Amino acid sequence: MPEADPPPSGKTSALGPPLPEPIVGRLAIVGIGLIGSSIARAALERRLARTIVCVDQDPNVVERARALALGDIATTSLTDGVADADLVILCIPVGAFESVAREIGPHLKLGAILSDTGSVKGSVIAQVTPHLPAGVHLVPAHPVAGTEYSGPDAGFTTLFRQRWCILTPPDGTDAAAIATVEAVWTAMGAEVERMTAEHHDLVLAITSHVPHLIAYNIVGTAADLETVTQGEVIKFSAGGFRDFTRIAASDPTMWRDVFLHNRGAVLEMLGRLNEDIAILARAIRWGDGDALFDLFTRTRAIRRGIVAEGQDAAEPDFGRRRDAPP
Amino acid sequence: MPEADPPPSGKTSALGPPLPEPIVGRLAIVGIGLIGSSIARAALERRLARTIVCVDQDPNVVERARALALGDIATTSLTDGVADADLVILCIPVGAFESVAREIGPHLKLGAILSDTGSVKGSVIAQVTPHLPAGVHLVPAHPVAGTEYSGPDAGFTTLFRQRWCILTPPDGTDAAAIATVEAVWTAMGAEVERMTAEHHDLVLAITSHVPHLIAYNIVGTAADLETVTQGEVIKFSAGGFRDFTRIAASDPTMWRDVFLHNRGAVLEMLGRLNEDIAILARAIRWGDGDALFDLFTRTRAIRRGIVAEGQDAAEPDFGRRRDAPP
Repeated sequence: MPEADPPPSGKTSALGPPLPEPIVGRLAIVGIGLIGSSIARAALERRLARTIVCVDQDPNVVERARALALGDIATTSLTDGVADADLVILCIPVGAFESVAREIGPHLKLGAILSDTGSVKGSVIAQVTPHLPAGVHLVPAHPVAGTEYSGPDAGFTTLFRQRWCILTPPDGTDAAAIATVEAVWTAMGAEVERMTAEHHDLVLAITSHVPHLIAYNIVGTAADLETVTQGEVIKFSAGGFRDFTRIAASDPTMWRDVFLHNRGAVLEMLGRLNEDIAILARAIRWGDGDALFDLFTRTRAIRRGIVAEGQDAAEPDFGRRRDAPP
Repeated sequence: MPEADPPPSGKTSALGPPLPEPIVGRLAIVGIGLIGSSIARAALERRLARTIVCVDQDPNVVERARALALGDIATTSLTDGVADADLVILCIPVGAFESVAREIGPHLKLGAILSDTGSVKGSVIAQVTPHLPAGVHLVPAHPVAGTEYSGPDAGFTTLFRQRWCILTPPDGTDAAAIATVEAVWTAMGAEVERMTAEHHDLVLAITSHVPHLIAYNIVGTAADLETVTQGEVIKFSAGGFRDFTRIAASDPTMWRDVFLHNRGAVLEMLGRLNEDIAILARAIRWGDGDALFDLFTRTRAIRRGIVAEGQDAAEPDFGRRRDAPP
């Protein structure tokens, strides 16, 4: 039996003991939200860096980072924050990369590694590259992990454990820089895979972006019906609808940017989905039970694969707790 | 803090002590799957009936019902099973009601109550009514609860706790019969609401049927792509896709029947969804970030409502357990 984790709020974790030697000297994390604060927490706990700098342009977030002791230094200044850093990880919405790269570019030190956690890789590379000084290594990364909560309080040490982190270094990227980023993610419990940015954006369109879009859409449609009230939608949501509302509660800025920056792949996958739903609607209209039954049987196999690969809980209902009535 | 429940496999429950007096004399449960076996377990534990009869046409299921001690009697005979029953609850796929009603109709005793747990109410009433003898009370019911698992081993006592059960008695139904069915569901921890069968089928189309259809569809589409492998879909499913696979692993027979028997409402709601997704696709194509941001903000409120009403867990990620790697 695998051992259960403490709840996200717990102070101990199963990531492992601190490393004998830090992987990097100075680590600057830019953007202290769910992802950035989870990296800070994991980096502190495993001692992945000698010094951890938390950078966020929002003074309230910097205040929280200090209160939560997420790093050695916390600052609102992008340029101060990245100065002298050996590894900079940008944990910001995909739409913010161009302006942040423009500002920090001239302040990155020679030999520094610039990485990130953006959900779209082609656009991030295109936005950052023009502002990258010679001698700075770009190693784009995307940890496929998250929750529906946002902000510095939402992060936790084990967010990346047993999750995949995809690296999409452009051809010719320095091998040592890639190895450093890979070591950081591995030490945070992630498994690392490499692929091209283009393929990443296609894979994530179907495994993440379109599911979010569909979830946002169904929740929006349900809220707008004139025949069924919003109260009824909420009350009877345990019939399946509530499963969609979790990801439809994800950060609006982050997701707006994802769709605007992975437009081609998202629209392509949405087109596929629409073709298939038309076939399903026709099967329902004409009473083709066999077609429905065949699909519904095939989809069970995918679920079994996900559970077998440790990417979801085998417990019924995601292992949701059933709280007693007051 | 509400008190946490033991896992589904646990033997104790928080439903409450056995009732001082059973609500009904003889209870016959027809169809011992996830729902029927959960009713049997809850009825046993709270002593809702003097005698509990488990009926299933599959001898293997009857065997399991005996092994699990789900009732006082277990039989494959529909006619023996319902004879002398004061309350019969049909927990069978929506497509099976006509044939089962035809077979049991002549064997129902005068004054008996016939109820069910079908996910579509208009069709169930239409299928059952022609076979209902005079003096038998039809009280259709639908507990909005379930998991992605099926069969007699998947049931558990608290499945209906803090979930809604919708009754759709036709006009003129005997008030005492309705009260009995309501008392049974209340004793199993459910909250009871009444509405017309027609309205029920519309509400469930959006809160349950269309979400299942969309989930089956997206999982099917993802499995069929030529640009992204099934292995990649499984590996990177934590980006959102895995949330859909749970309900897309639900019982294929049950769901085939739901779509075939709630055709009108499902196609109507699907039409709404398609209109809205076209608007979203256009916003993405033309870079209308404000439209996306507005929708993504509105949908958060629905999620908050569902959590506030106790219909989903507030914990991040449905409270999924994060198991340690081996």
